[in-house]
Amino acid sequence: MSTAIRVTIWNEYRHEREMPEVAKIYPMGIHGTIAQALDDQGLTVRTATLDEPQHGLNDEVLANTDVLIWWGHAAHNEVSDEIVTKVQQRVLAGMGLIVLHSGHFSKIFKRLMGTDCDLKWRESNDKERLWVVAPGHPITEGIGDYIELEREEMYGEPFGIPTPDTLVFVSWFTGGEVFRSGACYTRGQGKIFYFRPGHETLPTYHNAEVQKVIANAVRWAAPTATRELIRGNTRSLEK
Amino acid sequence: MSTAIRVTIWNEYRHEREMPEVAKIYPMGIHGTIAQALDDQGLTVRTATLDEPQHGLNDEVLANTDVLIWWGHAAHNEVSDEIVTKVQQRVLAGMGLIVLHSGHFSKIFKRLMGTDCDLKWRESNDKERLWVVAPGHPITEGIGDYIELEREEMYGEPFGIPTPDTLVFVSWFTGGEVFRSGACYTRGQGKIFYFRPGHETLPTYHNAEVQKVIANAVRWAAPTATRELIRGNTRSLEK
Amino acid sequence: MSTAIRVTIWNEYRHEREMPEVAKIYPMGIHGTIAQALDDQGLTVRTATLDEPQHGLNDEVLANTDVLIWWGHAAHNEVSDEIVTKVQQRVLAGMGLIVLHSGHFSKIFKRLMGTDCDLKWRESNDKERLWVVAPGHPITEGIGDYIELEREEMYGEPFGIPTPDTLVFVSWFTGGEVFRSGACYTRGQGKIFYFRPGHETLPTYHNAEVQKVIANAVRWAAPTATRELIRGNTRSLEK
Amino acid sequence: MSTAIRVTIWNEYRHEREMPEVAKIYPMGIHGTIAQALDDQGLTVRTATLDEPQHGLNDEVLANTDVLIWWGHAAHNEVSDEIVTKVQQRVLAGMGLIVLHSGHFSKIFKRLMGTDCDLKWRESNDKERLWVVAPGHPITEGIGDYIELEREEMYGEPFGIPTPDTLVFVSWFTGGEVFRSGACYTRGQGKIFYFRPGHETLPTYHNAEVQKVIANAVRWAAPTATRELIRGNTRSLEK
Repeated sequence: MSTAIRVTIWNEYRHEREMPEVAKIYPMGIHGTIAQALDDQGLTVRTATLDEPQHGLNDEVLANTDVLIWWGHAAHNEVSDEIVTKVQQRVLAGMGLIVLHSGHFSKIFKRLMGTDCDLKWRESNDKERLWVVAPGHPITEGIGDYIELEREEMYGEPFGIPTPDTLVFVSWFTGGEVFRSGACYTRGQGKIFYFRPGHETLPTYHNAEVQKVIANAVRWAAPTATRELIRGNTRSLEK
Repeated sequence: MSTAIRVTIWNEYRHEREMPEVAKIYPMGIHGTIAQALDDQGLTVRTATLDEPQHGLNDEVLANTDVLIWWGHAAHNEVSDEIVTKVQQRVLAGMGLIVLHSGHFSKIFKRLMGTDCDLKWRESNDKERLWVVAPGHPITEGIGDYIELEREEMYGEPFGIPTPDTLVFVSWFTGGEVFRSGACYTRGQGKIFYFRPGHETLPTYHNAEVQKVIANAVRWAAPTATRELIRGNTRSLEK
Repeated sequence: MSTAIRVTIWNEYRHEREMPEVAKIYPMGIHGTIAQALDDQGLTVRTATLDEPQHGLNDEVLANTDVLIWWGHAAHNEVSDEIVTKVQQRVLAGMGLIVLHSGHFSKIFKRLMGTDCDLKWRESNDKERLWVVAPGHPITEGIGDYIELEREEMYGEPFGIPTPDTLVFVSWFTGGEVFRSGACYTRGQGKIFYFRPGHETLPTYHNAEVQKVIANAVRWAAPTATRELIRGNTRSLEK
Repeated sequence: MSTAIRVTIWNEYRHEREMPEVAKIYPMGIHGTIAQALDDQGLTVRTATLDEPQHGLNDEVLANTDVLIWWGHAAHNEVSDEIVTKVQQRVLAGMGLIVLHSGHFSKIFKRLMGTDCDLKWRESNDKERLWVVAPGHPITEGIGDYIELEREEMYGEPFGIPTPDTLVFVSWFTGGEVFRSGACYTRGQGKIFYFRPGHETLPTYHNAEVQKVIANAVRWAAPTATRELIRGNTRSLEK
């Protein structure tokens, strides 16, 4: 594609305004840090947050978004069902969706997965290693055998998701757990990538490799051959 | 398993009461015809219909159902969201679910798939051939290369579903279309089978091979090793 | 990618030299017709045939091929196992592979699938319709609901392949059969696409839509983030 | 099934005869230990080893085997290609296959996978935890959240296999690695389960939970609805 991919980064954006230790790490919000990283990669970026009208996701914004990134945590239930339905429809029509970390429990992710998306978790001093299990996958471009994060929240199995189309990363944690931490899906004409790391009290989104994965995922999830689908009642095709 | 599988057959049960030509084919309701066939196979069967209190699916019924069969068509929207949520939770906890024909548009199927489940269709004089594409799959036991139905409603691609874990049947229609007409999924601990044929104005559920497939699917979908899942906050495991 | 994708089109190239009716349709060989179509699309194309030394696939050719296209039929057994092994290794290292029509029985396809790749077939007067079942997939770009071929050899299920990662096309035939006619796989770091049509006595590869699918498949299968894999004995990673 | 599943346990059976420290752990051979465990579970068991005529796998044995278990390590290349082909054909016709540990590099596993099946490894003092990522799967029946093995050889990603149909276990190792240690496939009409643990110098196959998984896998892999497939040239089906 010659034109730049248009990314909208959605963030709950509450922790950063309410918790000084989070604000210190993400003074522009988690969305601001990711936006800067993607802008540096030549992507066309805008942001949207929960407390904006329509959560910043009105029809015009959605219609002009190729890939939507989603970070939410404490206020999933405050996202309106109407907006969730519109986002779902856009994904089915071809918009890419990248769900980060605690977004596993967002309405939009649960809606698209059809499952409970539950997991084990622990805030502690775990080191995380995200191992590449799909070498050659475009999301892993520029990444070595694994990404190491000195400190992260732990997420553990069983993770209540459908079998991914492609499993890209599996995480190892010091405390003894594993997690399917990078998972690809196609739903309708849209591509979805779930990427585990990114606890709000840790500087994960400043990590260059994490940023690289998100940028790779944006390029992977951007729509290519989407189309209008004509369904419903149809005539017999003449043979 | 030495104990019999407990099946609940859910039917919208409106066409049979409102349309004489349907009543003639299914005087006991579609659920009644399927119930008899499954009973003959040694399964423990009960039925439930839309207009019963809680649609016949109260907590006690759901808790004692191993496999739920679902036929709905014109009144999907009258099924309460609360019951749909309970059925979804039971599926994720291990209950099998078999969705028939126009049930592709039921709330429960769309909920579990996360997609629009849309398709092409035509009421006409099509012959349907359901080809076995997964020979050796238990759902195809006792079935030859294909099942032929002299007359059926046509369903055509694209069918708006996630990629099935296993595609069991693909249909051919006289009018020139194909359809993924037998599709297996696992969601949580539950197994799901979508099976295409069964238009209400045609005697499809009296067909011995169609009955055989449904009975096979019940046995395939019955839960085996389900368990209580403990998730949420967890301690570091000592190494 | 700014540099052009390098395609090698491999053809058995016997029918065209031995059968006048085939030569009439493909005077430059099947490979020649496909080469011209891909060249028109801005791809860098070379060809290779069975009766060249090393079947035209020496190490230098393979090392400089991003995507290999394979057409074979009557002489699968004349392809040397050594070359097959080299092609397999290149695919696992990231080279794309597109297998056409009777190539379903080629050594390289059977090697990569691990199954017998058998099917039903009939040379007759069947019309074929290849229905798109994965709208939005890059291989379907520019294609409508289906591709129609006035006359083709019939291939029927069961097709002895592993479940495709993505099923892109399903064919309908006048004679009453269906076939999974466009199937995507990843093996190692390489992407594989099987595409059904293309009987040698018919002008299928002159069809603009068939050419479009092959060009799309080349772009889809071209490697992106391939890497050298270091495996074998490894030290304990210090925590 | 009322009749007992017939299991053949194949073992290379060299380490046990050549290395006293292995013989001490497995005085009856690895196959002997597994045979006893499966016999205790009511399965009909026989064994076969590399140095028997035809490696103990003559046509009569194969024809009367429902599920074949495979352990090999140092002598993969001594297994005759002819026997490998026969085993492959039996799997495609419906025989179950369970490949253990270093069998990842066996001819039969590589043949059925189509990939290199390579991995990282280390003989050290790692503890292994095999986490259940597919709760509800019959292979996990009777197993808790994970199986813990105090000492095992480490296997690490990337593991050169196709995407499993179902991923059942993911391993965690003290040294910092993860591994897809329980993976299900269907190839033709046969079911295949790869199960990681079982280094010959460690008493892994005496572990009750490991034995339980192998017995579960045998029951899961046993054929049900297999059939003779008629393929090749076929007449047009009259419409």
